Amino acid sequence: MIEITGTTQLICLLGSPVAHSVSPAMHNMAFSLLGLDYAYLAFEAGETQLAEAVKGLKLLKARGWNLTMPNKTKMCELVDELSPASQLMEAVNTVVNDEGVLKGYTTDGSGYMRMLREYDVDVIHKKMVLAGAGGAARAIAIQAALDGVAEIVIFNRSLDKAVKIADDINSHTDCSASAYSIADTAQLSRALEDAALFTNATQIGMEPNPGQSVIEDKGLLRPGLVVSDIVYNPRKTKLLKMAEEQGCKTVGGLGMLLWQGADAFKLWTGHEMPVYDVQNKYFK
Amino acid sequence: MIEITGTTQLICLLGSPVAHSVSPAMHNMAFSLLGLDYAYLAFEAGETQLAEAVKGLKLLKARGWNLTMPNKTKMCELVDELSPASQLMEAVNTVVNDEGVLKGYTTDGSGYMRMLREYDVDVIHKKMVLAGAGGAARAIAIQAALDGVAEIVIFNRSLDKAVKIADDINSHTDCSASAYSIADTAQLSRALEDAALFTNATQIGMEPNPGQSVIEDKGLLRPGLVVSDIVYNPRKTKLLKMAEEQGCKTVGGLGMLLWQGADAFKLWTGHEMPVYDVQNKYFK
Repeated sequence: MIEITGTTQLICLLGSPVAHSVSPAMHNMAFSLLGLDYAYLAFEAGETQLAEAVKGLKLLKARGWNLTMPNKTKMCELVDELSPASQLMEAVNTVVNDEGVLKGYTTDGSGYMRMLREYDVDVIHKKMVLAGAGGAARAIAIQAALDGVAEIVIFNRSLDKAVKIADDINSHTDCSASAYSIADTAQLSRALEDAALFTNATQIGMEPNPGQSVIEDKGLLRPGLVVSDIVYNPRKTKLLKMAEEQGCKTVGGLGMLLWQGADAFKLWTGHEMPVYDVQNKYFK
Repeated sequence: MIEITGTTQLICLLGSPVAHSVSPAMHNMAFSLLGLDYAYLAFEAGETQLAEAVKGLKLLKARGWNLTMPNKTKMCELVDELSPASQLMEAVNTVVNDEGVLKGYTTDGSGYMRMLREYDVDVIHKKMVLAGAGGAARAIAIQAALDGVAEIVIFNRSLDKAVKIADDINSHTDCSASAYSIADTAQLSRALEDAALFTNATQIGMEPNPGQSVIEDKGLLRPGLVVSDIVYNPRKTKLLKMAEEQGCKTVGGLGMLLWQGADAFKLWTGHEMPVYDVQNKYFK
């Protein structure tokens, strides 16, 4: 519930589809709680409309916007400045409009890492195993590498995208990265043996297929391993259930959504999002 | 106080300046009361930015927008269809975006006439005297003529704009219109003798000059004449005070603002604005 006046500035989401996004609810609640004069709306706009939409938003002096599928890559070409992480990730999910100068950031990776800290999961100088090589996996892996994770092992169905992430990490950070096929269960088993964290960054297990898990053999999940899933629908995925049964600490997917939003909120407003109030209302 | 979700559609105001506009408060309150899924924001945009802003709003699938100074004339060139009244007024204050087809309306005149009906002021088939020849005066005079006012006498400082309004009315409607200099008090006195309504459609008497009145001799205001002012700041202008002293019925400027908004609201949403609830909150 926000009060809009003649001075209220627009912030928005550009993507397709966006009708079910929780970002408007999350940000508007935070604006309202802090008494900030912004309104967050979601607009249906795909890649072919992005350049024109951005021109319009600049003209309307929008404070900034989020990008979701399919616009995160394309947005890189349309900003005036790219943060170092965005440059490496080749993706922008948050734009700040500083009086006509557009600055591109990505908070998917930083939100994920922030969430780990909030849940007292320590992976710095340690080893992490990641399933997936799409946009979310790439953002998480690169941010983890930039933040000081010592080693990242990436598993994916098709190898080329996983290899590209590993190559980019190896050539731009101090982290050591490698890539394998997800079908290589022997390698997966070996990688997990001394890992601090396993992250599912694929959509496996998401509705309407909640019976699936990226790891099928729960024996691979030993106590002491933290298991994290970026899927938040259902809240407790099959992977997280298996991990719980094995005595692992688990971290669900809502936190990443929440903290990527909080990082964007900070970039636009300069204020910390009242994350736990928002979480209690929208993220249970 | 509105609840914005991923499906909420944008409606806005384009003008300069807009920071102190009450339109966002008025429309958002009405959306909220009726549970309609829109949000109304105000954007600073002048004539040179209008075409690009409109392109952007189409792309963002905004449901529509209002125009205020300096954009009402320019907007005529940018719509796909113009209502007959808009065409005659050469002004658009309300655009409806029907899936990419832009329809231009003006509700300044229709809102004024609606307000008269709400206040039981009957001018149809009667004579009206109007001071001013700017955009508001033009909209009021033309709508009054279209609605069936029998005679309109326009007074203005510079004659040419007043004469143009009178000419347009005489050649396009059944109403008989004439124009005189506001300095011609003899003519003004004669015109008011058998008029049903006097309307100040100039900004004379508005803050910061509340001591001014477009009519200086209150003897011209006889009981039986209704006196209306489009100035709403102050609520009771010097003209209205003089008219009250003379025993005239008076109508303040807030009503026009409110009812032009209500007419636009109806065009966008198909619903009647809950005008009296809005009035009680914002228009006292």
